[in-house]
Amino acid sequence: MLKILVIHGVNLNFLGTREPKIYGSLTLEDINKKIKDRASEHDFEIEIFQSNHEGEIVDKIQSHFQNSDYLVINPAAFTHYSIAIRDAILATGIKTIEVHLSNVHSREEFRRKSVIADIAVGQIAGFSYYGYIMALDYIKESCVK
Amino acid sequence: MLKILVIHGVNLNFLGTREPKIYGSLTLEDINKKIKDRASEHDFEIEIFQSNHEGEIVDKIQSHFQNSDYLVINPAAFTHYSIAIRDAILATGIKTIEVHLSNVHSREEFRRKSVIADIAVGQIAGFSYYGYIMALDYIKESCVK
Amino acid sequence: MLKILVIHGVNLNFLGTREPKIYGSLTLEDINKKIKDRASEHDFEIEIFQSNHEGEIVDKIQSHFQNSDYLVINPAAFTHYSIAIRDAILATGIKTIEVHLSNVHSREEFRRKSVIADIAVGQIAGFSYYGYIMALDYIKESCVK
Amino acid sequence: MLKILVIHGVNLNFLGTREPKIYGSLTLEDINKKIKDRASEHDFEIEIFQSNHEGEIVDKIQSHFQNSDYLVINPAAFTHYSIAIRDAILATGIKTIEVHLSNVHSREEFRRKSVIADIAVGQIAGFSYYGYIMALDYIKESCVK
Amino acid sequence: MLKILVIHGVNLNFLGTREPKIYGSLTLEDINKKIKDRASEHDFEIEIFQSNHEGEIVDKIQSHFQNSDYLVINPAAFTHYSIAIRDAILATGIKTIEVHLSNVHSREEFRRKSVIADIAVGQIAGFSYYGYIMALDYIKESCVK
Amino acid sequence: MLKILVIHGVNLNFLGTREPKIYGSLTLEDINKKIKDRASEHDFEIEIFQSNHEGEIVDKIQSHFQNSDYLVINPAAFTHYSIAIRDAILATGIKTIEVHLSNVHSREEFRRKSVIADIAVGQIAGFSYYGYIMALDYIKESCVK
Amino acid sequence: MLKILVIHGVNLNFLGTREPKIYGSLTLEDINKKIKDRASEHDFEIEIFQSNHEGEIVDKIQSHFQNSDYLVINPAAFTHYSIAIRDAILATGIKTIEVHLSNVHSREEFRRKSVIADIAVGQIAGFSYYGYIMALDYIKESCVK
Amino acid sequence: MLKILVIHGVNLNFLGTREPKIYGSLTLEDINKKIKDRASEHDFEIEIFQSNHEGEIVDKIQSHFQNSDYLVINPAAFTHYSIAIRDAILATGIKTIEVHLSNVHSREEFRRKSVIADIAVGQIAGFSYYGYIMALDYIKESCVK
Amino acid sequence: MLKILVIHGVNLNFLGTREPKIYGSLTLEDINKKIKDRASEHDFEIEIFQSNHEGEIVDKIQSHFQNSDYLVINPAAFTHYSIAIRDAILATGIKTIEVHLSNVHSREEFRRKSVIADIAVGQIAGFSYYGYIMALDYIKESCVK
Amino acid sequence: MLKILVIHGVNLNFLGTREPKIYGSLTLEDINKKIKDRASEHDFEIEIFQSNHEGEIVDKIQSHFQNSDYLVINPAAFTHYSIAIRDAILATGIKTIEVHLSNVHSREEFRRKSVIADIAVGQIAGFSYYGYIMALDYIKESCVK
Amino acid sequence: MLKILVIHGVNLNFLGTREPKIYGSLTLEDINKKIKDRASEHDFEIEIFQSNHEGEIVDKIQSHFQNSDYLVINPAAFTHYSIAIRDAILATGIKTIEVHLSNVHSREEFRRKSVIADIAVGQIAGFSYYGYIMALDYIKESCVK
Amino acid sequence: MLKILVIHGVNLNFLGTREPKIYGSLTLEDINKKIKDRASEHDFEIEIFQSNHEGEIVDKIQSHFQNSDYLVINPAAFTHYSIAIRDAILATGIKTIEVHLSNVHSREEFRRKSVIADIAVGQIAGFSYYGYIMALDYIKESCVK
Repeated sequence: MLKILVIHGVNLNFLGTREPKIYGSLTLEDINKKIKDRASEHDFEIEIFQSNHEGEIVDKIQSHFQNSDYLVINPAAFTHYSIAIRDAILATGIKTIEVHLSNVHSREEFRRKSVIADIAVGQIAGFSYYGYIMALDYIKESCVK
Repeated sequence: MLKILVIHGVNLNFLGTREPKIYGSLTLEDINKKIKDRASEHDFEIEIFQSNHEGEIVDKIQSHFQNSDYLVINPAAFTHYSIAIRDAILATGIKTIEVHLSNVHSREEFRRKSVIADIAVGQIAGFSYYGYIMALDYIKESCVK
Repeated sequence: MLKILVIHGVNLNFLGTREPKIYGSLTLEDINKKIKDRASEHDFEIEIFQSNHEGEIVDKIQSHFQNSDYLVINPAAFTHYSIAIRDAILATGIKTIEVHLSNVHSREEFRRKSVIADIAVGQIAGFSYYGYIMALDYIKESCVK
Repeated sequence: MLKILVIHGVNLNFLGTREPKIYGSLTLEDINKKIKDRASEHDFEIEIFQSNHEGEIVDKIQSHFQNSDYLVINPAAFTHYSIAIRDAILATGIKTIEVHLSNVHSREEFRRKSVIADIAVGQIAGFSYYGYIMALDYIKESCVK
Repeated sequence: MLKILVIHGVNLNFLGTREPKIYGSLTLEDINKKIKDRASEHDFEIEIFQSNHEGEIVDKIQSHFQNSDYLVINPAAFTHYSIAIRDAILATGIKTIEVHLSNVHSREEFRRKSVIADIAVGQIAGFSYYGYIMALDYIKESCVK
Repeated sequence: MLKILVIHGVNLNFLGTREPKIYGSLTLEDINKKIKDRASEHDFEIEIFQSNHEGEIVDKIQSHFQNSDYLVINPAAFTHYSIAIRDAILATGIKTIEVHLSNVHSREEFRRKSVIADIAVGQIAGFSYYGYIMALDYIKESCVK
Repeated sequence: MLKILVIHGVNLNFLGTREPKIYGSLTLEDINKKIKDRASEHDFEIEIFQSNHEGEIVDKIQSHFQNSDYLVINPAAFTHYSIAIRDAILATGIKTIEVHLSNVHSREEFRRKSVIADIAVGQIAGFSYYGYIMALDYIKESCVK
Repeated sequence: MLKILVIHGVNLNFLGTREPKIYGSLTLEDINKKIKDRASEHDFEIEIFQSNHEGEIVDKIQSHFQNSDYLVINPAAFTHYSIAIRDAILATGIKTIEVHLSNVHSREEFRRKSVIADIAVGQIAGFSYYGYIMALDYIKESCVK
Repeated sequence: MLKILVIHGVNLNFLGTREPKIYGSLTLEDINKKIKDRASEHDFEIEIFQSNHEGEIVDKIQSHFQNSDYLVINPAAFTHYSIAIRDAILATGIKTIEVHLSNVHSREEFRRKSVIADIAVGQIAGFSYYGYIMALDYIKESCVK
Repeated sequence: MLKILVIHGVNLNFLGTREPKIYGSLTLEDINKKIKDRASEHDFEIEIFQSNHEGEIVDKIQSHFQNSDYLVINPAAFTHYSIAIRDAILATGIKTIEVHLSNVHSREEFRRKSVIADIAVGQIAGFSYYGYIMALDYIKESCVK
Repeated sequence: MLKILVIHGVNLNFLGTREPKIYGSLTLEDINKKIKDRASEHDFEIEIFQSNHEGEIVDKIQSHFQNSDYLVINPAAFTHYSIAIRDAILATGIKTIEVHLSNVHSREEFRRKSVIADIAVGQIAGFSYYGYIMALDYIKESCVK
Repeated sequence: MLKILVIHGVNLNFLGTREPKIYGSLTLEDINKKIKDRASEHDFEIEIFQSNHEGEIVDKIQSHFQNSDYLVINPAAFTHYSIAIRDAILATGIKTIEVHLSNVHSREEFRRKSVIADIAVGQIAGFSYYGYIMALDYIKESCVK
């Protein structure tokens, strides 16, 4: 049974409340429900974690990497500067998929830069909550065949 | 019935022959087979087009946009400089998903720049042929609900 | 009655002890006393918070924004790289005034860059503790007229 | 009798259909009609060519330069990267006027760069179809006096 | 009756005397004569002003904008740094056409940058005195139709 | 009795007429009235000067610095390039506060650069006319205690 | 018997007609004659191709790489931006020598950048038609020893 | 008796487990053992602290600086962006030695930039655990002579 | 008899009053006295002009160039941005020597850039008032031999 | 009889000993043997010089330029910064061919920059010792015809 | 018995005479005495060399590398541009430790760049003469265990 | 009696032979004659030195600085990269005047950068041999008064 660690970065606990034009109107709870449903369809064991603290995300990656076949992460603002999270991924060697709800390429210039993308398997941006589903489907396709 | 235009850019007709470490061992025919199967599952009408000529891709977008609900495009090398293709997408206003087989963020620095991503719905990179499937699934999810 | 959230960023708990040439000789307690006095003159309800942890500042903004008419923030070192705090302000939509004790424009080059200023109402820099008072006075002027 | 070669670059065959705010509501046919009328007033022999293919534009310049006193070109997207067209102009030595329908200086930053302008007689941008008329009038003024 | 304000920037009073290879051999008086003749053909009321003082140009724009339907300006050297003139145009909201006698794109690199072009209707460069005539003709075409 | 020199830079005589979204609807006269009132409350002698001419502002600083305890200046467009005004402040050694009506950090990129801020006591941006009041209050607080 | 594919890029069909100072007075036919003669001396089978169309060059590389031991290419203007040609070379893995007639290092700054040189065996620039001969001689030396 | 504060930054608790080629096969415990042994030889009182949380490192520096003659810090990923830690060092004025296990100059380009090095006594990089020993020896040499 | 035009730029009327460490303690009057004495030794006719207004300097160059064999100019702050003065020198073709009292290379970075130096005969910086004397001596040497 | 000066720059005396993957396994003596043989075939008088001292290379160029029809130089590391050697070539006006054993375009980024290439006849890179032979053959072809 | 080559770069023969604030008051002789003492403690054979000539340093590295287990080098000013020394180290493959007396990170910006650090084992900067001792101790620790 | 050290950098021994348009037709001997004559008029003891070797120039500065009141140096090509010479001047603390025969600001872009100018008393460029005379005159003026 595949084990997936899903990490939502800073401010993602705030989804659905404001800026629906950019992030959609679903709350994080709604999104997590969809993630869990798909995980269950795929027979994945899933652990979901959100934090506004960079250090807690690093801790989480370190403590769970041995029980995780894949990390699906939306680092949110941390995407653009958290070399700490990059190094946690490098240090654990965990296979990683980077997901963004919005299309980071069509917003402020600084959002086009990710310090994580080049060490990930791939990056999915702009498909709202469905980016997480895509990531799970890909894992199913590539690991369980 | 949704109509999808799939465009493969320059050199993608060459897949499966060389550089399997970067692009996988599937041929373009294999990939198109998978795309068609999924399209058929989703009940999409699908048109697939490949060209090594920037101008033919522009022509294709112009001539098909009125019959297409979505463009799924892997512009390959054109991603990084073809403002002509960007302008064809802008001019037709066609909803576009950008797909890359490899993780463009982990290769030469110049591959991190896309002149198309900021006008697309979103970008999917690094998941081999499955990126196209993700795009189709997303269209199903967002349009047919 | 207007409610104001005042946030002091990293290392500001250390004021008054060292580097008085740059930051003045007042302690944070002294400054908070002055802030509270002016708030009380203006009949504002005031909440003051200091943290050396970026994540706690994000948490604070999220948890208090609905009870706050204005955020007066001196992000200190976070000014220059914390897109997380920027996004917390964007996500909550809280009206924000950025304050700096020292003149950030006359120190190291990197201090001239703020990742927050362009989404704030305005920025006040170089007037020591009095920058906070200016912010409160402005709120009084613009909201209570 | 002066002979003028007018070249419309990529996507200009699409005018009048979409993005009227940027490019106006005239079709390319409408514009060509206006160009021909003015050419006829000035007693110019005129050849008009549009292509979405960079190579065809190079071919056209090469094959017509000996029969042309002036090239009036709106390279559209090719303006910003087609050194091939630049070199065709350099190689033929044809006198060239660069025309843009929209004001390229007020759009995306990359549209401010032209790889052709410094080898042209001059550049006209922002006056819709009338830019072509200006070019013809200038040729009349400077050559037929 | 349309009213046009024509402004010649710094050093343009010196035309015809030196550097004829770059600027032509006409004096400013010659050029103004041509401008007035065309204005009279178009039935425009015309005001022409030249100054070597940035401040006087700002004053002129401010004092005449209410009597002017269009500003035709050749800011000369001010093109490249006078944000003051830019702001005068922005503040008055006057419709503006930027004209250059020489082709600014083929001279020193710094002449390719204009701080005014992106807020103008359009830019005309490289056609000597005839650039002003083009501007007047365009105004005729677009306003009096 | 403290003597304050207030200088309004280029185009600020035009306030209240246009672009109220950026600069507010007060005229310069309205703002000067407010400045004078507050100066009078603080028992300051005040001299107010506006010019669209960089040279006149330099002259003013030179001729008044010996009678002025503080310069409160909104250089407007000159902020971004007038090293002449910078040098006048350096040469006279006058204590200077830089004020901007709008938030210069949220407009065109070039407005984020000030050639004056690093030699000023501090900078206040984004609080409309109240920025001047803040400056006067700060002078009161720091000089008259 | 070694098989060599020689590709001449855009505008090279125009050699000998204009700009002899930069490119020499030989026509492409003259040059091809010299190439064929040397190939024949070396007992090479040779295929020569010229196109002004980037896409045709990509097609040619793809269709001939299996019959070619070496590609000798002068991409002309494509040198500086055609990642499509770069990718065709990468995808086919064909051993490649880059040749330029003129010294690209002593012309416009942008001509110093090649998007192909780093994946070629080597680069020869500045020796007119003789650059092709050098390339053939090198192949002889390194392959046929 | 000299008191030394040793701080290990983010992810250093993970040493010895993965990436031994870059960081060596010693665990942090092994390294701390070596540090303590050398400290004891030198008769130093030593406090060792590791955290994945930037804020906790700032807290630690603030709370211990009065009891510490020297800070020996390996900020790991924080080296490259944590102005917060820089400011904690500046604010406390603690004498600081920056240590890196790996040679930061031979890895990703961004690792060559340290926001701390210019305010440290010096920097030691590339000598694995022995960098800490060097730092202790230097302190012995320079302080206890 | 050689005629020399000496122009002192913005703020130079203020010499001798402040910042003697950078500019020396001589007043402009003192310096002009020295210039006149040397001019008289060399039998030069001399015209000296100072202005804080860029436009007046342009006017002066235009009105005097025909009576001047040489321009000796210290543009002060205008050195770094006044393309207007550059163009006045270009337009009049007057032979020009650029003088700076202080060593512009050892001050703020922006002072190393001159928009005038490349069109001058030469530049003299760092020798206080004696730079003007050097310029006059050079003119004597090169013109009167 | 043509006279050729061949200069090998710094560290080239070390060839054949180490890094054979980059530079090949031939020693400098082997290469010089090949150069001499070809020179003798072409009936050239040849002088070969190697030095690790930039100054000696400058001396050599100065002392031999009058006896040399051509300089064939591989400046090695000096390629990237020795403006001294560039100036020696400029000062003597000697016709120069730049040769590199390895493909400088596919190594460290800084090796793509040559301070000599733009003043040479041409550049040959990536063909090992055969680059020198190519240079000699070219000289034969262009001078002795 | 380990053999160590110690190289002191340009101007280091001048230590102890001037700029003691930056480089300390020890002469090079004093430092060499300390190096020899420690080498003798460690039972190392040591060769010390100083030169102001880049070429002599290259010569030294080439002639001694086979008799040296380690190179300890302080290239001084050569650190920042001598690719020749870099290449000598690369060509000989000698294990290298880079030492700087002063903290190069806290001086002029250009001193932060080393063209040698990325090919060294590691870099030690800021610890005066003791940096050499650290290097020797490290060699002892890593080689003689 | 003042002692002056004059140093001519690389390739200056070659003056008068070639490129007279840039450097004049005087030989170095001619120039030295003029320098000695003026030195003798001023009663200066003078030492003149030329070398094409950076290291010899460093040696000269070190060995003569105690007998020299001033260094007049034309570093020629070394101006742009020899931090070694910069450091020799810094280390000896010798007062230095930088002289260039040609106007370095009007030639290749890289000649505008000097690594020496900011630590010199001043810089003189563009006045041919007379720049040295100016330097001597200045020394007379400033030291012997």
